[in-house]
Amino acid sequence: MTSLLIRNVRIMDGDAADILIRDGAIAEIAPGIDAPGVAVEDGGGLIAIPGLVDAHTHLDKSLIGWPWYKNDVGGGSLVRMIENEREMKKRLGIDPHVQSMRHALKTVARGGTLIRSHVDIDTEGGLRALEGVMETAEKLADVVEIETVAFPQSGLMIREGTAELMDQAMAMGADLVGGLDPCGVDRDPKGHLDTIFGLAEKHGKGIDIHLHERGELGLYSMEMILDRAEALGMTGLVTISHAFCLGMADFRRVDAMLARLAALDVRIMTTAPTSSPAPMVKELDAHGIKIGAGNDGIQDTWGPYGNGDMLERAKFVGLRNNLRMDEEVKRALDICAGGGAEAMAKPRRAMEAGAPGDVVLVEGETVVQAVVTHAPRKLVVKGGHVTARDGQTLVEAP
Amino acid sequence: MTSLLIRNVRIMDGDAADILIRDGAIAEIAPGIDAPGVAVEDGGGLIAIPGLVDAHTHLDKSLIGWPWYKNDVGGGSLVRMIENEREMKKRLGIDPHVQSMRHALKTVARGGTLIRSHVDIDTEGGLRALEGVMETAEKLADVVEIETVAFPQSGLMIREGTAELMDQAMAMGADLVGGLDPCGVDRDPKGHLDTIFGLAEKHGKGIDIHLHERGELGLYSMEMILDRAEALGMTGLVTISHAFCLGMADFRRVDAMLARLAALDVRIMTTAPTSSPAPMVKELDAHGIKIGAGNDGIQDTWGPYGNGDMLERAKFVGLRNNLRMDEEVKRALDICAGGGAEAMAKPRRAMEAGAPGDVVLVEGETVVQAVVTHAPRKLVVKGGHVTARDGQTLVEAP
Repeated sequence: MTSLLIRNVRIMDGDAADILIRDGAIAEIAPGIDAPGVAVEDGGGLIAIPGLVDAHTHLDKSLIGWPWYKNDVGGGSLVRMIENEREMKKRLGIDPHVQSMRHALKTVARGGTLIRSHVDIDTEGGLRALEGVMETAEKLADVVEIETVAFPQSGLMIREGTAELMDQAMAMGADLVGGLDPCGVDRDPKGHLDTIFGLAEKHGKGIDIHLHERGELGLYSMEMILDRAEALGMTGLVTISHAFCLGMADFRRVDAMLARLAALDVRIMTTAPTSSPAPMVKELDAHGIKIGAGNDGIQDTWGPYGNGDMLERAKFVGLRNNLRMDEEVKRALDICAGGGAEAMAKPRRAMEAGAPGDVVLVEGETVVQAVVTHAPRKLVVKGGHVTARDGQTLVEAP
Repeated sequence: MTSLLIRNVRIMDGDAADILIRDGAIAEIAPGIDAPGVAVEDGGGLIAIPGLVDAHTHLDKSLIGWPWYKNDVGGGSLVRMIENEREMKKRLGIDPHVQSMRHALKTVARGGTLIRSHVDIDTEGGLRALEGVMETAEKLADVVEIETVAFPQSGLMIREGTAELMDQAMAMGADLVGGLDPCGVDRDPKGHLDTIFGLAEKHGKGIDIHLHERGELGLYSMEMILDRAEALGMTGLVTISHAFCLGMADFRRVDAMLARLAALDVRIMTTAPTSSPAPMVKELDAHGIKIGAGNDGIQDTWGPYGNGDMLERAKFVGLRNNLRMDEEVKRALDICAGGGAEAMAKPRRAMEAGAPGDVVLVEGETVVQAVVTHAPRKLVVKGGHVTARDGQTLVEAP
């Protein structure tokens, strides 16, 4: 936890001011702050926005730094993509620590200060991926906060031994219990959900479950999730990632589900996908549901896209939700920053005293312009600690 | 029309070769070409791709170069956005020539060599926008080929005098007759379509009509368009832009319509929008329908998004259509280059002898990597003429 005085920045679209960070948190925002003995950075009139938050990614999957991976598998079948990934990981000898360092630092270079990473737990890779990502989290503790979700990517009930590995993962220190399409992958929604909620109860942790299932099937799985959240008193402790079914056309059904999600304070993480239905920001906002966003896996066996940039993701959130007004685009940014942190049950990143000292300086005429151009990040600060300058992290990637 | 030898490039993902452009067209692609007296550019081992094609944009609308336009109108109502734009154009005193120069050169800087621009024709602006864009087309004749579509943005039947202006626009030299949501805006599909097809017949030109109408309404308008195309023998001369209705869920209806579109060789232009249904590349490809892509308006009163980059648009086409395999992403690029040109009834841009001498050199390990990172354009060549280096056009924007 460090102290830092950032001079002469524009606070979002506001007037010029200085930002004083003391012991990792924003202590004061005002013009002409005097703070003897505190290190100073000149903001040069740039725009200051809160640290960016990737609330849904997979740090253990990226192939950054490897020769180009030619994808011949495509997106036809979820199970085939999962199997292809397990096979490629073995064949290439991917090191989850090295890959997660590369991925996390790419995110930091673009203003990331907080990441939630799902990490594959399966009977082939065992706990290796989690060990690697936890090693990265420890090494980068001053650079970016990394939360881990033990994620049964290859299925839980259909692969004997996975539940035990998940239990070990939680004992090792994973922050949340993950899950995946209880109907679609395991074909045993009761077994899947009883297992992951059992683990959450045993270890006293929250849940973040991937739910790609669409339409009525997705709503059915969602109901089963909410039944358990309610029975176990897990209000505010359950997150549903993707939640494609909330984008289905039958709005009566969706709206009723949103009301129930809100009542249990379930959080929704989205990538603002373009090729599938998706939870709609304005509809969720109308119910006060907390929303985070994430880049999901980047440059991996699943597809070639992605770069760790949560400012570009804010643009995608804006485009996906048809957000055209400046105030709306700012909400898209918030989902990729303070709002995302809140959805992760972390302190809200914001340009105000008391908030974490996570600040990003970007070029641009206005904040909205910075979002739509995903403008260069000139300085990234995490807890008062400078982590990147001009798109380069101070810690070098392996 | 110029000659140029580009040495040492990788042809798409292929081996190193030289490209000889003679009199504006690719004459030869081979290693170690000897062409005495021809100007030489060193390609430095970069990837050579065909010139990029923006087949649907609005050069007269952008606010590039103006102070930030704060959008308070949003995307709730098409008519309100249209009215707001007309009012803002007047209030700001937008000069269509200056704005279209800025916009076109932004596109060129990112590898654009061919643009189709819709240009507003209405009873307030008259023919001013078309005059401005045509002046730009003439000034930039060596830099980028610009085609114009006389576009009744504010409605045709609902604004007396517009049809006469459209007639004058065609007489002035607009390349195509435009149209807009015959049901949704004019509320008179018969009147609207009879008018624009009448103009096309009178002036011997093709049609490119905006069709945002969704679902059955869109299919109904599409049927009325095709009835007229068929009756007038306009096979290959009609383009439908956006065509959101082709993304509707009822695939039986869509597939039957695709068969009819294919039979009349109707071309489809898409922006690969993320917040609305859209024509799906693989479905259209299955019918052999020609597809082009466009950035649509950029940085205007409609919204803050867009930058003129058709390589980024190729990424959007890939994301929108869930294209993950390398071969699929290359098809997305083709839609934004050679395929788009073909959809415009222009010679296909391609890396082969006989094709136009439109070449872009990009950084990257592979073509797909260049698409997904929209990698820097190091050199842009149009008809053998160097138009941009390192993201800067040689002609300066006003």
